[in-house]
Amino acid sequence: MAVTRVGLLGCGTVGGALVDLVSQRAVAIENSVGIRLEVRHIAVRNLEADRGPAVNPDWLSTDSNAVATADDVDIVIELLGGIEPARELVLGALNAGKPVITGNKELVANHGAELFAAAAKNKVDFLFEAAVAGAIPILRPLRESLLGEDVTRIMGIVNGTTNFILTRMTEDGASYDEALTEAQELGYAEADPTADVEGFDAGAKAAIMASIAFGVEVVANDVHHEGISNIDQTDIAFANRLGYRIKLLAIAEVFGSGANKEVGVRVHPVMVPLTHPLASVRGSFNAIFVEGAAAGELMFYGRGAGGDPTSSAVLGDLVDAAVNLRGNTFLPVPAGAPAVIRSIDEVDSAYYLNMEVGDAPGVLAEVAGVFGHNGVSIGSMEQTGLGDDARLVFITHIAKERALQQTLIELGELGSVRAIRSVLRVVED
Amino acid sequence: MAVTRVGLLGCGTVGGALVDLVSQRAVAIENSVGIRLEVRHIAVRNLEADRGPAVNPDWLSTDSNAVATADDVDIVIELLGGIEPARELVLGALNAGKPVITGNKELVANHGAELFAAAAKNKVDFLFEAAVAGAIPILRPLRESLLGEDVTRIMGIVNGTTNFILTRMTEDGASYDEALTEAQELGYAEADPTADVEGFDAGAKAAIMASIAFGVEVVANDVHHEGISNIDQTDIAFANRLGYRIKLLAIAEVFGSGANKEVGVRVHPVMVPLTHPLASVRGSFNAIFVEGAAAGELMFYGRGAGGDPTSSAVLGDLVDAAVNLRGNTFLPVPAGAPAVIRSIDEVDSAYYLNMEVGDAPGVLAEVAGVFGHNGVSIGSMEQTGLGDDARLVFITHIAKERALQQTLIELGELGSVRAIRSVLRVVED
Repeated sequence: MAVTRVGLLGCGTVGGALVDLVSQRAVAIENSVGIRLEVRHIAVRNLEADRGPAVNPDWLSTDSNAVATADDVDIVIELLGGIEPARELVLGALNAGKPVITGNKELVANHGAELFAAAAKNKVDFLFEAAVAGAIPILRPLRESLLGEDVTRIMGIVNGTTNFILTRMTEDGASYDEALTEAQELGYAEADPTADVEGFDAGAKAAIMASIAFGVEVVANDVHHEGISNIDQTDIAFANRLGYRIKLLAIAEVFGSGANKEVGVRVHPVMVPLTHPLASVRGSFNAIFVEGAAAGELMFYGRGAGGDPTSSAVLGDLVDAAVNLRGNTFLPVPAGAPAVIRSIDEVDSAYYLNMEVGDAPGVLAEVAGVFGHNGVSIGSMEQTGLGDDARLVFITHIAKERALQQTLIELGELGSVRAIRSVLRVVED
Repeated sequence: MAVTRVGLLGCGTVGGALVDLVSQRAVAIENSVGIRLEVRHIAVRNLEADRGPAVNPDWLSTDSNAVATADDVDIVIELLGGIEPARELVLGALNAGKPVITGNKELVANHGAELFAAAAKNKVDFLFEAAVAGAIPILRPLRESLLGEDVTRIMGIVNGTTNFILTRMTEDGASYDEALTEAQELGYAEADPTADVEGFDAGAKAAIMASIAFGVEVVANDVHHEGISNIDQTDIAFANRLGYRIKLLAIAEVFGSGANKEVGVRVHPVMVPLTHPLASVRGSFNAIFVEGAAAGELMFYGRGAGGDPTSSAVLGDLVDAAVNLRGNTFLPVPAGAPAVIRSIDEVDSAYYLNMEVGDAPGVLAEVAGVFGHNGVSIGSMEQTGLGDDARLVFITHIAKERALQQTLIELGELGSVRAIRSVLRVVED
């Protein structure tokens, strides 16, 4: 019976939950794969903190470098978060010939290529299932099950905080501010919620999924992102009435192939038709919808955050890496050349526009004319009274972002248009 | 660059789609993993059938044994279906040291243990992702991502035919017979639909999932199954009004651990609350809902049948087996001792009962008394007029199947009970 010795960098919420889980599951795992997992070292900043009964104080050390490269550590798990010192520690462990597991999306989304190269050079596993959508197995299916598949598009609800906020706004009529405050009280949102609500967190995950699915290097900075802080109850009410749910989606698409391959990666709110599987993903749950040429539509659903779900994903990687290590093998890294990024201007979408106009003869014709001469075709329109003004809501057919942006500029120049309240992309049924 | 030579047993819908897919994807796969997949031999019954441009007639042979053990075949794919000769051919290939991939649920659900043992003895892959839920990656996540997870229950919509029929009955008011006829016209159902509508097909898949998830041997014959042919519009209407969808679910549960571990595996119609992710799985789509102690709730959704989706799953296994073969490794087989099967009598569930009773004083008290003295607690009740009779609909709290069955016997003996129209299990919210 083999023993696999684990070194852990960081022992916060996920790290603590992982140590508990390893101790609970060690016997079952030993029975199933014949490997005993033993935590040997844990690098922490504070040796004095109370870490519960599963953490043996003898394991603790403040010397992260020593843990990452210790002779009596077979596999290193990095759960520090952030770029440095995580990057240097992971590189050190890989270069010491140790498989590394991380749940650090920021690290993988910004320095994936460097880390993949180090893993390939040293012929060891570099696994990071926990970095995208917590407990949901999505990266392994993409790296293995769908390796032969022509994956054309991925659309994911990969930020539980924003999905919680949008669900509360939709189902309970909460305002954005109320829902955000509740998310903060429940611990779903940080005191500074920017990374979640403006789409940075989802963008990092989108970059990782695009890299794996399309075999190219996509970094966080390649991702166009817009957040949900401008969504209000007017939009929610229209979405409900028109048969949609508003979701913050991370979308990765591939266009062309070979030398002409381009990748578009973006995060923004989307109106999703109620009949689409993503529309029924509620609360803080995550889901990733994958479209493949042969497989058709797939969706992977589950808990995207939290100590237990995230540590479950880390443990899955750990068992896999331990089995591979015993077999003297590893999962080939998904290294690819830097992607040619398709500008958001060139991306096609349908759009929802909500604007306030003066209620006078000829206004609708004027507004419709702007859409028309920019080649943006109107799918449906609704006009409602608004005191002396009127509200116009349009859903367009598929158009290029560039044409839509030019339409918005010209609409803004019309004297009759008081305000463009909101613009959302629409996923067609 | 390595070449992996493939021998194919059977070239029907899935086999033909697979050959097409291999030829379309060969270059992309070569670029991504450095292995060129080449079909070398295909065993068929009829050499003269037209098989399209991707099938080279030189590959065809009627000698299945020769293909399964050919020196110039590295990996064997079995797509014949049925037990024999598939079983002997697969054993022959495994014993010749060749990894085998199959989409044959009947074979794996009835002879899995023998095949797993042969694969283990010969240290080769035996992969069968396509045997459960077509294109959906579910077995690999269970075998790898969730290997460390304490999976407690799996509930799956794993038969697209019955889900199509139930969706048409729910959304369009079709009768069972109308929906079945339509399914047959669309090619979703066989002329003899028994295997689908009575739950045999789902039962085989449930046995396979239970084996993998719980690390024990479960065979098709261990699965309790009931079909959907008794469901009528009365049930559908009540389900809709009470906030449920009726789904045919394959349910696998584990109770206890170690020497006391028992497994319950069953297929029957279930009322699923609208808020549950399985409720929104429509038409011929499949989905598997997995509950784990740390991971929480997961769901895997996609196409469960059809040439392209199924061949996509086979191709995923093929790429994986080819990579493993080059690395001189294989995925450990999920061998386990025969499961101790928990009798359906001992399984806990909530129930929906729909019965017709004489509309006279005291009847409700009499009926309620039968529930009461059998320890079946009533969650909600509704009485509606029905000419001279009345219809009573009950939803119970969790009760043992044995107690429910005794309740049904005693209700049937009451003079006031005209008919027990239907009994369905209920998944609680």
